[in-house]
Amino acid sequence: LKIFTCNSNPKLAQQIADYIGIPMGDSHTTSFSDGEIQVKLNESVRGCHVYIVQSTCGPVNDNLMELLIMVDALKRASAKSINVVIPYYGYARQDRKARSRDPITAKLVANLIEKAGAHRVITMDLHAMQIQGFFDIPVDHLLGVPILAQYFRSKQIENPVVVSPDHGGVVRARKLADFLNAPLAIIDKRRPEPNVSEVMNIIGNIEGKTAILIDDIIDTAGTIVLGANALMEGGVKEVYACCTHPVFSGPAMERLENSPLSEVIVTDTIPIMHPDPSDKIKVLSVA
Amino acid sequence: LKIFTCNSNPKLAQQIADYIGIPMGDSHTTSFSDGEIQVKLNESVRGCHVYIVQSTCGPVNDNLMELLIMVDALKRASAKSINVVIPYYGYARQDRKARSRDPITAKLVANLIEKAGAHRVITMDLHAMQIQGFFDIPVDHLLGVPILAQYFRSKQIENPVVVSPDHGGVVRARKLADFLNAPLAIIDKRRPEPNVSEVMNIIGNIEGKTAILIDDIIDTAGTIVLGANALMEGGVKEVYACCTHPVFSGPAMERLENSPLSEVIVTDTIPIMHPDPSDKIKVLSVA
Ligand SMILES: Nc1ncnc2c1ncn2[C@@H]1O[C@H](COP(=O)(O)O)[C@@H](O)[C@H]1O
Ligand SMILES: Nc1ncnc2c1ncn2[C@@H]1O[C@H](COP(=O)(O)O)[C@@H](O)[C@H]1O
Repeated sequence: LKIFTCNSNPKLAQQIADYIGIPMGDSHTTSFSDGEIQVKLNESVRGCHVYIVQSTCGPVNDNLMELLIMVDALKRASAKSINVVIPYYGYARQDRKARSRDPITAKLVANLIEKAGAHRVITMDLHAMQIQGFFDIPVDHLLGVPILAQYFRSKQIENPVVVSPDHGGVVRARKLADFLNAPLAIIDKRRPEPNVSEVMNIIGNIEGKTAILIDDIIDTAGTIVLGANALMEGGVKEVYACCTHPVFSGPAMERLENSPLSEVIVTDTIPIMHPDPSDKIKVLSVA
Repeated sequence: LKIFTCNSNPKLAQQIADYIGIPMGDSHTTSFSDGEIQVKLNESVRGCHVYIVQSTCGPVNDNLMELLIMVDALKRASAKSINVVIPYYGYARQDRKARSRDPITAKLVANLIEKAGAHRVITMDLHAMQIQGFFDIPVDHLLGVPILAQYFRSKQIENPVVVSPDHGGVVRARKLADFLNAPLAIIDKRRPEPNVSEVMNIIGNIEGKTAILIDDIIDTAGTIVLGANALMEGGVKEVYACCTHPVFSGPAMERLENSPLSEVIVTDTIPIMHPDPSDKIKVLSVA
């Protein structure tokens, strides 16, 4: 068994190797002057079961190509099995034709990973569970909820209520609520007329409680911060937010800093590159 | 017949459409806040023969993914045939295992393009002709030499000699020499001992002639500028350089500006993004 990594999550890969008690596989993934990726495998993998730890985000296309080229190199170097660990699966939100003539990029990416030569995928909190079915190879799907739940349990929050920021996230929120033995609430967004801004209606009893908003991805943080504001107006004592995948693009950091959120608990499926002056963000490891 | 483009060569695509006399297909390729590519097809392609003009360079991985996602969108929108026009085929230099455990990324890219759903590839001056064989779909391989030759003929250069900067490029140089009815010379690089710098030995008669260096790709411009210097030392009157693909990465522009080259003639398979203060670079269109 050997573990390799490219440039998206070297720290997480190292932590996994440490946890298992083996050294990291010796490889080097860099770029030529024109931006083309160069992968160098510095040790034999002939007959080995290899694992590559690489999220497809950050610079999503660069990191996806790194992964594909690494798989190609391992395949041609006669690895026995190639297992790709994709803590955050990029393009997961393009999982269906939302409009006519849309691509289904999450399926394209699945095809590319299989075509490159992967034998198994291990990933976490896919935006849509259906993406498992986009693959014809085994997909192990891990959940971030137990790790997040452990944190909240150790904090011994009094009178908690778990809140889903939309209807799509209720199953995930339900799981966290079960772990914490807490009630559930749902934010019900409605646009009364076109071009009129959305109304946030909260389903469930939240008054005086400590709310824990949970989502799979926090990207620009628009949804989660609007949700936090609505909860504060609805009379909660305090609001926490948590997610598995901190994409944190565009205005995300600023929005989180200026929000009423006390803390934002995330995992290290995506390394956080931005500074966090107010120290709101807590990172838990999935290693 | 419809022509679409993404973000690598919109101008070239427009010129091709103008040449044929049809409007450009209506599509829009942008990025979400986190860098994921979004492709929007704004017109029906059902039953159509579509052509996508897109080089896989610039930001090579982004432009390759744009192409793949566009192919996916066209496929799902029931295009009858999907023809990808790749003026510059990125990763072409990773065409073999130069060292053990190297990936063969040019083959990987061929697999990805086929898997996405392309039916035919049209490309120019592949770094290695073998890349045609990496595909199981038809590959039309066009040459830049006729366009370059036309330019030199119209300049009526006196006493020209066509020079290949290395042994790998002799066939290409031979073709240009035939077009121009000119003799051929070859720069023979040799490293007398390891860690001693290369000696440039010129095979062929160049004294007093006007040299035309030709290569497929000018990337960092190291090879071509060293060649130009060697030719000047060898007694040529003047040196021109030409190539099909102006990758021009890293120190390329600076090197070309400071070189003894009179002119650098290239094509528009790759748009040139850098300023050219000394106006040495002439771009010919392949449209
Ligand atoms: N990277 C992205 N950033 C923002 N929105 C996206 C992204 N990828 C897909 N989408 C959009 O998000 C929607 C899917 O989100 P959801 O309804 O939560 O599954 C689709 O309408 C997509 O157009
Ligand atoms: N994008 C690139 N930039 C610079 N060198 C490259 C690039 N891609 C491949 N190479 C190297 O170029 C060599 C192939 O060039 P050639 O011998 O001219 O076919 C190989 O040894 C590669 O490692």
